[in-house]
Amino acid sequence: MTDVDSSLLPEGLEDRLPAEAATTTRVMRSIQDVMHGHGYDRVLPPMIEFEKSLAARMAGIQSRRMFRFTDPSSLRMMGLRSDHTPQIGRIAQTRLAEAARPLRLMYAGQVLTIKSDGLNPAREKLQCGAELVGADNLAAATEIVSIAVEALQAAGARGVSVDFTLPDLVDTLAAKAFPLEAGQIEAVRRELDTKDAGGLRDVGGEAYVPLLYATGEFDSAIEKLCEIDAGGALASRIASLRQIAASLNGAARLTLDPSERHGFEYQTWFGFTLYAEGARGPVGRGGTYRIAGNGKDEAATGFSLYPDALIDLLSASETPEDRVFLPLGHNRDEAARLRSIGWRTVAALSDADSAQGLGCTHVLGKGGPEKV
Amino acid sequence: MTDVDSSLLPEGLEDRLPAEAATTTRVMRSIQDVMHGHGYDRVLPPMIEFEKSLAARMAGIQSRRMFRFTDPSSLRMMGLRSDHTPQIGRIAQTRLAEAARPLRLMYAGQVLTIKSDGLNPAREKLQCGAELVGADNLAAATEIVSIAVEALQAAGARGVSVDFTLPDLVDTLAAKAFPLEAGQIEAVRRELDTKDAGGLRDVGGEAYVPLLYATGEFDSAIEKLCEIDAGGALASRIASLRQIAASLNGAARLTLDPSERHGFEYQTWFGFTLYAEGARGPVGRGGTYRIAGNGKDEAATGFSLYPDALIDLLSASETPEDRVFLPLGHNRDEAARLRSIGWRTVAALSDADSAQGLGCTHVLGKGGPEKV
Repeated sequence: MTDVDSSLLPEGLEDRLPAEAATTTRVMRSIQDVMHGHGYDRVLPPMIEFEKSLAARMAGIQSRRMFRFTDPSSLRMMGLRSDHTPQIGRIAQTRLAEAARPLRLMYAGQVLTIKSDGLNPAREKLQCGAELVGADNLAAATEIVSIAVEALQAAGARGVSVDFTLPDLVDTLAAKAFPLEAGQIEAVRRELDTKDAGGLRDVGGEAYVPLLYATGEFDSAIEKLCEIDAGGALASRIASLRQIAASLNGAARLTLDPSERHGFEYQTWFGFTLYAEGARGPVGRGGTYRIAGNGKDEAATGFSLYPDALIDLLSASETPEDRVFLPLGHNRDEAARLRSIGWRTVAALSDADSAQGLGCTHVLGKGGPEKV
Repeated sequence: MTDVDSSLLPEGLEDRLPAEAATTTRVMRSIQDVMHGHGYDRVLPPMIEFEKSLAARMAGIQSRRMFRFTDPSSLRMMGLRSDHTPQIGRIAQTRLAEAARPLRLMYAGQVLTIKSDGLNPAREKLQCGAELVGADNLAAATEIVSIAVEALQAAGARGVSVDFTLPDLVDTLAAKAFPLEAGQIEAVRRELDTKDAGGLRDVGGEAYVPLLYATGEFDSAIEKLCEIDAGGALASRIASLRQIAASLNGAARLTLDPSERHGFEYQTWFGFTLYAEGARGPVGRGGTYRIAGNGKDEAATGFSLYPDALIDLLSASETPEDRVFLPLGHNRDEAARLRSIGWRTVAALSDADSAQGLGCTHVLGKGGPEKV
């Protein structure tokens, strides 16, 4: 029973064919190898679990964006994961509750959402990342940013840039320097989001206007942030950002957008977005946050990479590896030896098979692989 | 909003924690590296697609065992994949329809079912495998069996055994040697399944009784199969099995169960089941089959490995890698150098961190890593 539609995929879902899939495998391994080298241990949560469990541990998970269905076995709602982070939080706070802190965990796999976001039509994405559970200090933030940059570069990204933000900036200023009434805070945030100086003044956020100009290239933007006289309320934030920037030591281009909060609604003092030259949209983001546990909150710092755009970019320019055609009756030991030193082999299964027909670059001859 | 249940996983789903996850990563990479070396190209189909599409290409997919849900975007039923094979068939027959045959494709990822099967409670499993599309001859079968065995051994399996079967045996004998009426074929198959000689005679399958004894250790079982005088109807099957067995050259223990059909309902002339010493249940299976296409059937040979049981077995005896603790203020270049030669490092984030506390085996001292 087939019909025309059986060859179509649903909107926002796609197959990666050999060239792209090879890049995907290489990119995912490179990223994981970097995190592994820095002492992060991989954990493998399931693709699906109870919707409540996926939604419980991080306020940022919108369960209405998840594919949901009833589990015929428990008759409870399950969800297909749309983010690994709450799963890592669950593992850290349950089965690894007694493990020493800081606890370094990493993950890599697919996430799915029922709707694509914004300009990116994909409903299935690759996500990999690292979580440093039990630490959100400057050292934790520094480690997380530098591993994220190193991982992207190991995967082949060029022109990596990091855009820093201070997610709780408005709260901090409202509490310590430029008081706002409860109802005003949201209005000030909204005007900062739209970068509207007039709007800011209209809602009584005059003191917040200079934040609009403390954006762009890091060195000059941080100077402008310094000029905001907030009675020292920003001093430790500014010092921390400077130290994180210095620790990157030129490895990435740095920018600052201190009031940016899109994607950072649930981060605490520090957040960042990652870009790579030529890759459409952000390739990752991270920051400090809190894992909401069973009555026990815990500080954490982490990043998530979304390498699909990078894979699209890189696979366009990667050349396939060489392949040696093995004629009928070839020496099997020699073929095994070639594979053991890194060659790929393609064995003839009948007289009809040929090196050219199967896209091989070499043929196994008497003296070894010969160029086709 | 958390409740007690938010730390529980649904029945049949589990997290793999660091030790098991490390083994999983290693095993999956080893298996993929073997298939890649033999010229198989990875493809990455999505986790979900239209239910019809998953069910269309192979009669063996029971869509009622899949997690299914309505796609809010297309309003059509989608399914979470329970097997990669129909996805590989779809890719081969659509986007790779024009690619040269034989087409070598591989896959690796998770599959999910709403119910566990038999004794194994898992509803999520790892599955990886290779498909040789456009070939089901002896050379194809030989290549597929030997790569499956090599992949298992590369992953760390010891005592691999291969149980051969001839899935269309009853059809072949009924058509060419021991005629059965249409209604009788199913009865004979059923009695062969239960290994019931009396039952076989009762349903008029007297001639099929010797098949019950042509089982067990390959060399003696194939002799017994030879003794069945079927007017040459089995000669080519027997010769092929002998050649496949000989090509393995002692790499695996071989057995024969010529009428076994559980799990081979949709295979054609050749099937096999893989076992590894100490791993519960089969670790894989494969054989020749036909991809049902849009009006165009195609021969194929392939195998699927289900490495979870092997991972459980191996992770129990694998020792964690060494880790070097990096004290506060360590030399960052030296730490990077150590990682580049394969060390894992764990950096101190505060005075409270210690090598012992974080389970490190070494500390970075003046002269390099020193044992704790």
